[in-house]
Amino acid sequence: MGGAHPTGMRIEMMDIKQYMTGAGEKARHASRAMARADTGAKNTALLHIADAIMAAQTVLIAENARDLEQGKQDGLDAALLDRLELNAERIAGMAEGLRQIAALPDPVGEISDLNYRPSGIQVGKMRVPLGVIGIIYESRPNVTADAAALCLKSGNAAILRGGSEARHSNQAIATVIHAGLEKAGLPQDAVQVITTTDRAAVGELITMPQFVDVIVPRGGKGLIERISAEARVPVIKHLHGVCHVYIDGEADLDKAVAIAFDAKCHRYGVCNAMETLLVDVSVAAAVLPRLATEYAKENVELRGCARTRDILSGINAASDEDWDEEYLAPVLSIRVVDGLDSAISHIHQHSSGHTESIVSENYTRARRFLAEVDSSSVMVNASTRFADGFEYGLGAEIGISTDKIHVRGPVGLEGLTSQKYIVLGDGHTRG
Amino acid sequence: MGGAHPTGMRIEMMDIKQYMTGAGEKARHASRAMARADTGAKNTALLHIADAIMAAQTVLIAENARDLEQGKQDGLDAALLDRLELNAERIAGMAEGLRQIAALPDPVGEISDLNYRPSGIQVGKMRVPLGVIGIIYESRPNVTADAAALCLKSGNAAILRGGSEARHSNQAIATVIHAGLEKAGLPQDAVQVITTTDRAAVGELITMPQFVDVIVPRGGKGLIERISAEARVPVIKHLHGVCHVYIDGEADLDKAVAIAFDAKCHRYGVCNAMETLLVDVSVAAAVLPRLATEYAKENVELRGCARTRDILSGINAASDEDWDEEYLAPVLSIRVVDGLDSAISHIHQHSSGHTESIVSENYTRARRFLAEVDSSSVMVNASTRFADGFEYGLGAEIGISTDKIHVRGPVGLEGLTSQKYIVLGDGHTRG
Repeated sequence: MGGAHPTGMRIEMMDIKQYMTGAGEKARHASRAMARADTGAKNTALLHIADAIMAAQTVLIAENARDLEQGKQDGLDAALLDRLELNAERIAGMAEGLRQIAALPDPVGEISDLNYRPSGIQVGKMRVPLGVIGIIYESRPNVTADAAALCLKSGNAAILRGGSEARHSNQAIATVIHAGLEKAGLPQDAVQVITTTDRAAVGELITMPQFVDVIVPRGGKGLIERISAEARVPVIKHLHGVCHVYIDGEADLDKAVAIAFDAKCHRYGVCNAMETLLVDVSVAAAVLPRLATEYAKENVELRGCARTRDILSGINAASDEDWDEEYLAPVLSIRVVDGLDSAISHIHQHSSGHTESIVSENYTRARRFLAEVDSSSVMVNASTRFADGFEYGLGAEIGISTDKIHVRGPVGLEGLTSQKYIVLGDGHTRG
Repeated sequence: MGGAHPTGMRIEMMDIKQYMTGAGEKARHASRAMARADTGAKNTALLHIADAIMAAQTVLIAENARDLEQGKQDGLDAALLDRLELNAERIAGMAEGLRQIAALPDPVGEISDLNYRPSGIQVGKMRVPLGVIGIIYESRPNVTADAAALCLKSGNAAILRGGSEARHSNQAIATVIHAGLEKAGLPQDAVQVITTTDRAAVGELITMPQFVDVIVPRGGKGLIERISAEARVPVIKHLHGVCHVYIDGEADLDKAVAIAFDAKCHRYGVCNAMETLLVDVSVAAAVLPRLATEYAKENVELRGCARTRDILSGINAASDEDWDEEYLAPVLSIRVVDGLDSAISHIHQHSSGHTESIVSENYTRARRFLAEVDSSSVMVNASTRFADGFEYGLGAEIGISTDKIHVRGPVGLEGLTSQKYIVLGDGHTRG
């Protein structure tokens, strides 16, 4: 009858497959009810969940403590443990996030461009949920509440797969979410939290196009690349952010210094931080020493090209690899370039397509930069740090897409919807 | 040194890989120039190509004759040979299509929703090309001109892989397109036609995300399923059309007969033809005999559920498989249902998500049908045959998407674009 081990493995894999298929079927079924749910019911659910999160504070902290304890035993580093932790402030933040999402306009059902055609029919578009959204994320348990709320408000069902290190926290948040859904008369299956630690669950989730309409991975580049490579379901992905600021020959140098300093130093570990500064050769000698003084105050390590080092003699040399590096740290590579074409060429070669900004008072160059740079956010005289769903007025974001298909840049409620055509007639036929 | 055969195969595969990588690199490079190209240059190219197609009529017909001759030798059936044929009328149609696309508004660069945010920055969206579009299609050579024109107008580079049976025709059309691009000062590499008969070329094309941004397959369900399964690039796909008309209990029966007849009989071999008719039980006895009389005039074979056959006693029984069948022929399955919920439930179970229509004078049911049916086109009192880019006013279409991600329903120029965020500031920083 075969050895015990292979048989055991086979049975376990069958179990995961059945478990995920079951979750997929329930999500697909619940997604129909969510698509029909009116705005009031969805908002009621969100507000109930917010109240329930506040009421469950003690339980959430206790369950989170189990994850933290296990994390310490497993030797997780301090940064990971910090991301994993739920405290009173973070729990209040989750509840506040839910209330903010309840207050946003409902995107579902919006009808646009409804016009008469020569045939006599009216044709327009209606915004509709995508259906079932799979979210795969790592340690932060508050993502469970945030992501569930965005999916719920946009009329979608969600299957959430958080990091195994946060499984008790996520399970406790799921219980609270289910209570809120039930109170509002919405199906609990609309938000399912997968807490099995078996990594095969992710493999199943990303290969069930019959049950899952889109995958949103949130996490490190490695996770996202693996999911993109293996998925048989569309993936809204954000790989990384190698963002550039280009200081043009006709830049206002005060603005240039303020923007280049802010883009690097406002926060280091974020995807919209500048990683490479490009400076036109005509202003390099004037602006680089001023910037170096500012960066020195924050202990930012500078790595320059040969022409940069002719001006800033003490700094390290940038290697070829530096131009493609997402430091997420107080490190900056600097290159002196010969005008706009040279800057755009560098960006097209090395950017991750996230965010780029030009500092210039020259109308034609600003207009060209806006038109020609192929990134999800392109800016004039503003810090790359503004590339953010809240700053853009989306109200909330589930991530930032560096893809071009479906949605690009910060992804809010609208990014979790699609549009179908509607046609209104009065007995109209083609024949 | 190994047998000659395996080595030979390996070298040939290397060649195809190099060939396609080269095409990809050239397309990526050309896509930058296309994204920058102004509306005038793109329209000039389209009009030059239209003129050149008319001027090349003799050559096109001669090259097409080589394909037709080979097709006859290879035993292609009459329908396939018909699709393959280029004649004076079809050549004039290609040229006219190019002129129509030149006359459409340019979607690229359109700025929308540009508003001030509390921080002082202005945030908006700018419509941009996707980059490089791979089109995979079967026998009809006019797709080469249509698809190239849509990609060109939307600022994209295109790699076109037509059916090997049309390779001489496609090569001749490519030559004409290149002449037109050159005359307008645009790179010839913006439209590349892959004429190798090696099927490995398709495998390469759909797995080069670094060079190709999206794949649009046009052809039978088998081709599209294979491409979707193997692609590592997003695919805008149209699997098939199992479209429904639902005659509600409060339908105007004159409209119902007109729409149900048109939706089936206007054309049979098209994806927006009705394949299944759903009739509410309360009007089945009144409307089905009238419809049967009309269908009999066109020799449409009817296959009914038990309740349908109680009313139309002479017809065949529908099997379980019939409800999922895309006949593309004068065949219709008919099911009597118990009201709107029953109709929607049947549609969600059996529809391919293409187009569904309700015939009803009841406001609430029409409104529910529009909101709840999850298909790319949802209609009230209109024939499913209207689901078409020209009827919808898109001016042209590259296909119909039954996906929800990125674009849904008829895909025109806008479906070949994306939107990036633009931010305008005046030295704005976050810090």
